[in-house]
Amino acid sequence: MSDSDTPFTVEMQVRDYECDLQGIVNNSVYFNYLEHARHQFLKTRNLDFAQLAAQQINLVLIRCEIDYKSSLRPGDVFTVSVEPERISRLKIGFRQRIHRKVDNQLMIDAFATVTSVNGKGRPFMPDCIEPLFQVE
Amino acid sequence: MSDSDTPFTVEMQVRDYECDLQGIVNNSVYFNYLEHARHQFLKTRNLDFAQLAAQQINLVLIRCEIDYKSSLRPGDVFTVSVEPERISRLKIGFRQRIHRKVDNQLMIDAFATVTSVNGKGRPFMPDCIEPLFQVE
Amino acid sequence: MSDSDTPFTVEMQVRDYECDLQGIVNNSVYFNYLEHARHQFLKTRNLDFAQLAAQQINLVLIRCEIDYKSSLRPGDVFTVSVEPERISRLKIGFRQRIHRKVDNQLMIDAFATVTSVNGKGRPFMPDCIEPLFQVE
Amino acid sequence: MSDSDTPFTVEMQVRDYECDLQGIVNNSVYFNYLEHARHQFLKTRNLDFAQLAAQQINLVLIRCEIDYKSSLRPGDVFTVSVEPERISRLKIGFRQRIHRKVDNQLMIDAFATVTSVNGKGRPFMPDCIEPLFQVE
Repeated sequence: MSDSDTPFTVEMQVRDYECDLQGIVNNSVYFNYLEHARHQFLKTRNLDFAQLAAQQINLVLIRCEIDYKSSLRPGDVFTVSVEPERISRLKIGFRQRIHRKVDNQLMIDAFATVTSVNGKGRPFMPDCIEPLFQVE
Repeated sequence: MSDSDTPFTVEMQVRDYECDLQGIVNNSVYFNYLEHARHQFLKTRNLDFAQLAAQQINLVLIRCEIDYKSSLRPGDVFTVSVEPERISRLKIGFRQRIHRKVDNQLMIDAFATVTSVNGKGRPFMPDCIEPLFQVE
Repeated sequence: MSDSDTPFTVEMQVRDYECDLQGIVNNSVYFNYLEHARHQFLKTRNLDFAQLAAQQINLVLIRCEIDYKSSLRPGDVFTVSVEPERISRLKIGFRQRIHRKVDNQLMIDAFATVTSVNGKGRPFMPDCIEPLFQVE
Repeated sequence: MSDSDTPFTVEMQVRDYECDLQGIVNNSVYFNYLEHARHQFLKTRNLDFAQLAAQQINLVLIRCEIDYKSSLRPGDVFTVSVEPERISRLKIGFRQRIHRKVDNQLMIDAFATVTSVNGKGRPFMPDCIEPLFQVE
């Protein structure tokens, strides 16, 4: 991406039930946020995760690295960005960052690697998935 | 660890509500499994995550890497292992693996890095946390 | 309420991770939706659930009845309404309905009864909670 | 049931991630517990919720009433009971109670009404579901 590019971004707000007994968003919930943003991104490529799954085309995560920089708290508004990056013929990576809106602080820096498998879990790249891999 | 060492292990079973529309355990749920196993491990060191949080001593994840090798399905019985490894004065790492019980297949290979912070999120290492860092 | 009254309403959208292996929103997730809408309603009365909890003022659910009329699916946009109704000096009820936006179909019809307890779980009605009970 | 009957019971333990910012099990999580116990009960009748769903036979909740008597806390061991009760040709009810193990205190008293629908959400009672309705 050139400097002028702005990545795809989803804005969300922390819901109280997403916080755990430490009073902060539970670690596992960031995974939900990241997944939701990726699925919204897919829709911009005319790919619908749920519809694909119904057709036995499963986009699955094969690796995820997350750096937790700081914790989101109840009511925080934040953005989740999604920047695709082709890794190989069958693998696509997504650089994802979560920023707290009030001060633009980086909370989460993540990299997710996804592939496409069929109903039996074998690598599978039907034509309809190709648009996802059109990363300039 | 020498070959003869057996890491701390927790056995669990997939519950149907942990599975998503692909019919497999949702990515975020493995985080719950890994966290639960770490907290059970802490108890073997006489550390209780919830009681520590009530005293404003917060054990927090600062980095996590997960390789998803294969997917757990409804009803699968599995084990989650926890192997601590001191990284620095304030950081401890946990190598964690999830194996499906029926065939001992490796499903998840993860490494979680944890630190201890006070109620304001600042690094904090009270004496009571020391036992956690006694990694031979 | 007179016919002209419009109840407090929150608009949300189903996220894929909220759906279970039947491909529909899991039963327990409606509880999250209902709770989130109640907490957003509380904010209109200048009450913040998380801040109250930090002061050992806990609003707790003591009873909930839910009729599941139909199931929300991935991507569905819906509204959650909140209509308060004083039940007794220490109990407040919330009639809550979830409608699917595309056709205004009633999906969930629920009634939640809430009370206020202190850190030890005993009934407790500090002055700051009074605004919640100002139901005309 | 005669007085001598003991209902089907599942034993579980609260996991820290199931607790919310009040430090107690979140309301929605009891739904997960109740559902898991019902699905374990179904297995005693040779019915597997996930396998049925894969065959487009969906057991769905149509009504649930829950009385929250007291709150489970981190680490609590508890039991969830399941007592079926035929309501009509197409509806089955489950009386479910959650007791804390240490003192046998009743925490949750619930009644869930379930029916069977096909992939399009229409009432559907294939022969394989009949065993569920064999309630003496």
